[in-house]
Amino acid sequence: MTGPFDSLSRRSLLGGSAKTAMLAGVAAAAGGAELLASHATAAEAGQSPEVAPGQLDEYYGIWSSGQCGEVRILGVPSMRELMRIPVFNRCSATGWGLTNESLKVLTDGLLPETKEFLAKRGKTTYDNGDLHHPHMSFTNGTYDGRYIFANDKANTRIARIRCDVMKVDKIIEIPNAHDIHGMRPQKFPRTGYIFANSEHEGPLVNDGKILDEPTKYVNIFSAIDGDSMTVAWQVIVSGNLDNTNCDYQGLYAFSTSYNSEMGTNLAEMTASPMDHVVVFDIKAIEAGVAAGDYQELNGVKVLDGRKEAKSKYTRYIPIPNSPHGVNTAPDGKHIMIAGKLSPTVSVIDVTKVPGLFQDADPRSCIVAEPELGLGPLHTTFDGKGFAYTTLFLDSQVVKWDIDKAIRKYAGEDVDPIVSKVDVAYQPGHLNATMAETSQADGKWLVSMNKFSKDRYINVGPLKPENEQLIDISTDEMKVMHDGPTFAEPHDAIMVRADILQPLDVWKRDDPMWEDARQQAKADGIVLENDSKVIRDGNKVRVYMTSTAPAFGLEKFEVNQGDEVTVYITNIDDIADLTHGFTISNHGVAMEVAPQATASVTFTADRPGVYWYYCQWFCHALHMEMRGRMLVKPKSA
Amino acid sequence: MTGPFDSLSRRSLLGGSAKTAMLAGVAAAAGGAELLASHATAAEAGQSPEVAPGQLDEYYGIWSSGQCGEVRILGVPSMRELMRIPVFNRCSATGWGLTNESLKVLTDGLLPETKEFLAKRGKTTYDNGDLHHPHMSFTNGTYDGRYIFANDKANTRIARIRCDVMKVDKIIEIPNAHDIHGMRPQKFPRTGYIFANSEHEGPLVNDGKILDEPTKYVNIFSAIDGDSMTVAWQVIVSGNLDNTNCDYQGLYAFSTSYNSEMGTNLAEMTASPMDHVVVFDIKAIEAGVAAGDYQELNGVKVLDGRKEAKSKYTRYIPIPNSPHGVNTAPDGKHIMIAGKLSPTVSVIDVTKVPGLFQDADPRSCIVAEPELGLGPLHTTFDGKGFAYTTLFLDSQVVKWDIDKAIRKYAGEDVDPIVSKVDVAYQPGHLNATMAETSQADGKWLVSMNKFSKDRYINVGPLKPENEQLIDISTDEMKVMHDGPTFAEPHDAIMVRADILQPLDVWKRDDPMWEDARQQAKADGIVLENDSKVIRDGNKVRVYMTSTAPAFGLEKFEVNQGDEVTVYITNIDDIADLTHGFTISNHGVAMEVAPQATASVTFTADRPGVYWYYCQWFCHALHMEMRGRMLVKPKSA
Repeated sequence: MTGPFDSLSRRSLLGGSAKTAMLAGVAAAAGGAELLASHATAAEAGQSPEVAPGQLDEYYGIWSSGQCGEVRILGVPSMRELMRIPVFNRCSATGWGLTNESLKVLTDGLLPETKEFLAKRGKTTYDNGDLHHPHMSFTNGTYDGRYIFANDKANTRIARIRCDVMKVDKIIEIPNAHDIHGMRPQKFPRTGYIFANSEHEGPLVNDGKILDEPTKYVNIFSAIDGDSMTVAWQVIVSGNLDNTNCDYQGLYAFSTSYNSEMGTNLAEMTASPMDHVVVFDIKAIEAGVAAGDYQELNGVKVLDGRKEAKSKYTRYIPIPNSPHGVNTAPDGKHIMIAGKLSPTVSVIDVTKVPGLFQDADPRSCIVAEPELGLGPLHTTFDGKGFAYTTLFLDSQVVKWDIDKAIRKYAGEDVDPIVSKVDVAYQPGHLNATMAETSQADGKWLVSMNKFSKDRYINVGPLKPENEQLIDISTDEMKVMHDGPTFAEPHDAIMVRADILQPLDVWKRDDPMWEDARQQAKADGIVLENDSKVIRDGNKVRVYMTSTAPAFGLEKFEVNQGDEVTVYITNIDDIADLTHGFTISNHGVAMEVAPQATASVTFTADRPGVYWYYCQWFCHALHMEMRGRMLVKPKSA
Repeated sequence: MTGPFDSLSRRSLLGGSAKTAMLAGVAAAAGGAELLASHATAAEAGQSPEVAPGQLDEYYGIWSSGQCGEVRILGVPSMRELMRIPVFNRCSATGWGLTNESLKVLTDGLLPETKEFLAKRGKTTYDNGDLHHPHMSFTNGTYDGRYIFANDKANTRIARIRCDVMKVDKIIEIPNAHDIHGMRPQKFPRTGYIFANSEHEGPLVNDGKILDEPTKYVNIFSAIDGDSMTVAWQVIVSGNLDNTNCDYQGLYAFSTSYNSEMGTNLAEMTASPMDHVVVFDIKAIEAGVAAGDYQELNGVKVLDGRKEAKSKYTRYIPIPNSPHGVNTAPDGKHIMIAGKLSPTVSVIDVTKVPGLFQDADPRSCIVAEPELGLGPLHTTFDGKGFAYTTLFLDSQVVKWDIDKAIRKYAGEDVDPIVSKVDVAYQPGHLNATMAETSQADGKWLVSMNKFSKDRYINVGPLKPENEQLIDISTDEMKVMHDGPTFAEPHDAIMVRADILQPLDVWKRDDPMWEDARQQAKADGIVLENDSKVIRDGNKVRVYMTSTAPAFGLEKFEVNQGDEVTVYITNIDDIADLTHGFTISNHGVAMEVAPQATASVTFTADRPGVYWYYCQWFCHALHMEMRGRMLVKPKSA
């Protein structure tokens, strides 16, 4: 079956300037358009995305899920989703947001006023998140396989995923900030810092004293210590903040601002033909912190980096019209700033940045500004001197020669554009294998397209996004695979498989269930051996082992109104032998992976017989792996 | 890269009887085993699973997600996940479980005592589900594209998905039942009834008066009216209930029982060498209901179908050892009962079932009982006279000839087994394209395997399941694709793409937001035009349109403590142009697909400036699609 392309040409709609077209809302209307690109089948290409049964993918794809709030692991090049890691969302399957272990991660790092706000709603944590940017920790400019960090734009948080077990171990709310968007780990010497942008403008102290007074709003740049997961320092800036990135030298971070105007509506935000990139001098900021040049606010050292304050910590480089993406080339020298409303990408030479802090012209570090097409959003790299930029309005990826772009900017008559390939439709982020590191290898590129429209059989008014896998191993870019995704995987990285060495089963001394370990000790329980009920007033602690196909207890009795905590320890020591624990009609369900302990607390409010059962298939007699919770009525 | 197979042979571990091996827990331990099957590459097979960019899948795969609680739509044969439909779970992306429209669906059908139980926990609905069996509505023996129905084992519910918009419109809790497992729609003349099994034994009235008295436990079979989504009638049975299915004549339903013993632990449940299938005589039951031969319990007419009651509504067919799957062949005549602990599949001839109700020997309707291998769980069909059964312990799918099985049972010396193919590892359900209908077409089969172990790059202690796509269009079965899935897609159906015709944009008169429509009318608001704030004491209703890239209001002000309801109407009339509405630091986020209205209610407890923004990428100026909620402090 071939896709039904209608006769309306998207391109014919897009005459005139990009800005005019976009303001008219034409961009998003571009659907069902004819595709001009050469879409190749596997056979014609340099490499095949097919991973046959029994073979393994060559890369881990670490995928954002946008407003789903989770992180996904894909195999690349097969583009198969291998795992979902719940982060800011609730997960029915794993009990994330329900188990005591996950609630500790979700609640410990919240600010006191947020805990108070949630308590009024009968909650201890948020149930949603908007996770845009998952990035791995670095050592010496390349991925080190320790952690994945990710932002939550919806509720102003940063999360950390442990790569040994692929679970979140820390989530912190960032004080003084509003709605964390851009986020990147420090590349050198190691991570180190996580740089994070507060996107939305607001009062520095947001307690209601300042409301509709936008001139008093500010934005905040944060550096989080990736080891301790605490905020190291913050900098107040002029203008808003969008995406961020850093160099390979450990000296500077760079953040785009699309709303240098500090407008509060569309017209105001897009008024100025020039916005800016803020450069943060990390060493100067650290010296400022050491010298006490900060105010302390909500326990964080906040420095003044505003333009009007002529701060020694920052510089503001003028960039045409609402810059968006910031991407550091693997050459260690160039940083690409995508124009969004400008058809240009501005290239910063990091060796010229120190000059800015000695009062050179802020634009003196720009060494190229090629005009690439309409709506440039993000850039990636192949490690061979080429850059690849998404063109949102043109629905294309453009391949260009960095060296030629620099020579052209210097006056030479050369064309930096190598080729363009159509994607379907409206690409945002893109990334190539290992492209964020010094080990970019130029094999595969993924274009993350915001609209799929007619690319799949129709699944109703809500449609998937479309991630297209492009072979960049040969001179010509070739679209090899269309990959649908739910909600919005803004961003993704692709990591060589040898870099990650996750565990097959948990280690019994894992800190994830430290609280359970301590409680068991106090109760005289050996988690790996004992299946016992401990009563402590109206608190009941039920300890149970699980080993296929049986729980350690075939029944337990509690009184109506008891606060019950069930601790399950999966003593099966076999890869993939995950058990589950569900109590029917109680909203209780959790995952217990091999050699893990997990616990859940609830009030036994319903008198009667309720079965608990294993809901992660474990054995031919899996359905028989169940027992009864007997809840004695109050009146009995 | 090739998968690291270790040297341990699974098969060498599995000597002796299946039951012995399973009770010893060996089955689940079978990992990293060598694969004996011939895995084919696309080039060698009858058909290719590759769906190149720009091409469309030929089948909708309607996929369960097990303990995830959602339904997934896959494209087949590409095995790409096209959409997630939140059902029993919470969804951060769509606001399912948060929006007023979804809460109405999730709460309206709950029993009063459940509402009370949840209210004590500060909730109006459950946050989890265990969704095993998604099945489409039928007309005249084949899929009619109206609805998908699905069970929740965790919290005893049935949900209905509208196929025009691919959203759930009804969820009901089943009274008197415990933990709904098997579920199937009536095939003829139409759906009609949804047949649903209560799996777990319990007191008929579960109020705590009967606790640890298993002899007083019963099980319940339910027929739900699929049009009104109310329980039509229930039947009390002997033994527990596992899977269910029905004939193509509209006369009988069939449910397996693995615990005819009514045991409460593993040893008791597996004690008897024979269990049974219960046959329900639908016409007799309807006549019994008409004649008043029932007790009314929680508003439902409950008939007595117990074996010891010698009921005219039921018959009990003895089947060897813990039967599990029930699958009706597209020939309209044969029903396959998989043995689980018996290596056999028992074949029922539906034309011989009326005889049972005239007191023929209960086994007289069995016309074949081929011995197929270890751990037969489910059977599917190609419409050409062959059946395909999963063998959990053997990790195989066996293809067998129905006619030869019948002839062998009649004494002829023929071998019904055609061939076997290894799958990786431990298959549960399987299904072939259109195989549950009279239009089975014998093209693709999916084996849903419970363990993936070494089939993918390692993602930590929690591993994906493995759905293997098998080409059954030629004589030899060939495994063509390994598809990883998160949590546990127990079951799936594959529906010809022409049968479903979903909408691209919502119709403005859709009943989903009827409450919002009525409230707007009362407030003098035209949802499609007006962006206004209506104050009603401390209740504030904020009406807003959304059209890329702007909301109808760039700000609104409320007082701390106000109960705020925001209604968003997406007036963009363009396929795929979904908007979102998130309020930062408020846990508020929802999807608003094209031409839909969605609403959310919350208390404005935090004084200050909070941005709301569109989180479903809609436009090049999507990030600028935002506005401010100003919350005036109580003291101000």
